[in-house]
Amino acid sequence: MSRTILGLLHPGEMGAAVGRCLTDRGHTVLWVSQGRSPATAERAAAAALTDAGTVAELARRAEVVLSVCPPRAARSVAESVRGFGGVYVDANAISPQSARSVARAVGAGGTGEPEAGRSGTGRSGAVFVDGGIIGPPPRPGGTPGAPDETRLYLSGERAAEIAGLFAGTPVGTRIVDGDIGAASAVKMAYAAWTKGTAALVLAARALARATGVEETLLAEWALSQPGLAGRSGRAAESAAAKGWRWDAEMTEIAASMTGAGLPGGFHLAAAEIFRRVPRAGSATVEQVLAALTGERPDQ
Amino acid sequence: MSRTILGLLHPGEMGAAVGRCLTDRGHTVLWVSQGRSPATAERAAAAALTDAGTVAELARRAEVVLSVCPPRAARSVAESVRGFGGVYVDANAISPQSARSVARAVGAGGTGEPEAGRSGTGRSGAVFVDGGIIGPPPRPGGTPGAPDETRLYLSGERAAEIAGLFAGTPVGTRIVDGDIGAASAVKMAYAAWTKGTAALVLAARALARATGVEETLLAEWALSQPGLAGRSGRAAESAAAKGWRWDAEMTEIAASMTGAGLPGGFHLAAAEIFRRVPRAGSATVEQVLAALTGERPDQ
Repeated sequence: MSRTILGLLHPGEMGAAVGRCLTDRGHTVLWVSQGRSPATAERAAAAALTDAGTVAELARRAEVVLSVCPPRAARSVAESVRGFGGVYVDANAISPQSARSVARAVGAGGTGEPEAGRSGTGRSGAVFVDGGIIGPPPRPGGTPGAPDETRLYLSGERAAEIAGLFAGTPVGTRIVDGDIGAASAVKMAYAAWTKGTAALVLAARALARATGVEETLLAEWALSQPGLAGRSGRAAESAAAKGWRWDAEMTEIAASMTGAGLPGGFHLAAAEIFRRVPRAGSATVEQVLAALTGERPDQ
Repeated sequence: MSRTILGLLHPGEMGAAVGRCLTDRGHTVLWVSQGRSPATAERAAAAALTDAGTVAELARRAEVVLSVCPPRAARSVAESVRGFGGVYVDANAISPQSARSVARAVGAGGTGEPEAGRSGTGRSGAVFVDGGIIGPPPRPGGTPGAPDETRLYLSGERAAEIAGLFAGTPVGTRIVDGDIGAASAVKMAYAAWTKGTAALVLAARALARATGVEETLLAEWALSQPGLAGRSGRAAESAAAKGWRWDAEMTEIAASMTGAGLPGGFHLAAAEIFRRVPRAGSATVEQVLAALTGERPDQ
């Protein structure tokens, strides 16, 4: 796979940045303009992606399809390439259970082996590679392995080949031992803390506000939990910018928890918190707390 | 209240340490030996408390009753002194709603004013002061106001008098403006983060363990969330030592959240996590994670 043709569905902020890493290394990265917004087209152009026009054409030409999309679209993106016979990589923030469901949707049994009872080419669909991305979108010139850089966790039989595509890019790759779902599990367990605590610190401060003791709580935090007021402010900013994506991700984490016999309530509550945050792109902590506690904006 | 007779129900680890602060300042602190364990008697003796024998006798003699007990006992402790006519301080980790219920149980309307329609002395029961303790049990010689010292939040009309009893002790006091429930709300919002995150970090690590990716998660944490593995270890230790008390406290926080129109799921999940932790006094993080994920101890 020294020069590979990939299909990227669909180039959002993260996907376009990952695609750019691949085109920078000489790979061809197809995308699909049909039905996408001008903003997506702009990102695709900036990342030197090649328009395949339709999903069917992308699936016909690509050796590897890379799905980087909001969690709730993961399955429908997979279904859109049904019949694709290459390597399908789902790099989305979905539960191990959802990853296995996506693997079935692209016709992969999870092992890459032909399914029994299917005739023809001996291939019954795609080979599935499970993925999970931790960190921000990769930046050109970024140092792979730095704490604030992008890591792509991969599991499945052909995970190493996919990792190879990213050699020399700012995307650090990690092969995870285990079945399909293992890479997704890493992402879920990681985000369980990072985004779960973002929701929790907002909920704690909102509780204090709703009960009239916010100033007292902030004074106690300043004394014995230094940094927590700042953390709540940053959580509010992030939630206003990205919370619309996190709602579904929290639901996936809750499903991961219950699937593992653990309580899902933390992340169902976190999903509720993120649903209440104004989708304003940016918002002050005041505006976010007002939305969480149901205050009228002008109060 | 320069020399006050107080009743303390019941001297556990925190209560005895608070009682000791009061006896050190020359106050008389009664306790009740009837039905209590030898360990309680030992703590009471060490704190120079005076045995009143029975709750009725304590209520007869005390000017102030101080309730410091597990959250789920808060209401029955209040009911045990029904008819007490002094100042009743509930310093427990209970929701504002529970604090108001305790206030009603001791016959206080919440304002300290006589209830309409009651005859006799003009006092219908106790005057209620709401409290919440943040920090570890006070240590003799500790510096009030230091981040790792004990703070007693107090609300209600006679909160300042109660604060006065602790002048010159290691217990820092803070008067919270607002109705009964305000001091409890401070405690709830504070513990929502501190103990909620203890449960959440354990749940995240347990998810990774249950899905076979714990080592991978720990490596990612080591890189991008330094300190989090240590935090999970300390959470496991604390939960093994004190989680049996936190279960009910988490339920109170969940009730505080729903009472304020916020999602209660974080802390119902936290309660479930703490219920699963072995009540061993001490346990390794391995033992705690095994219990959370339902592994057999010998696996």
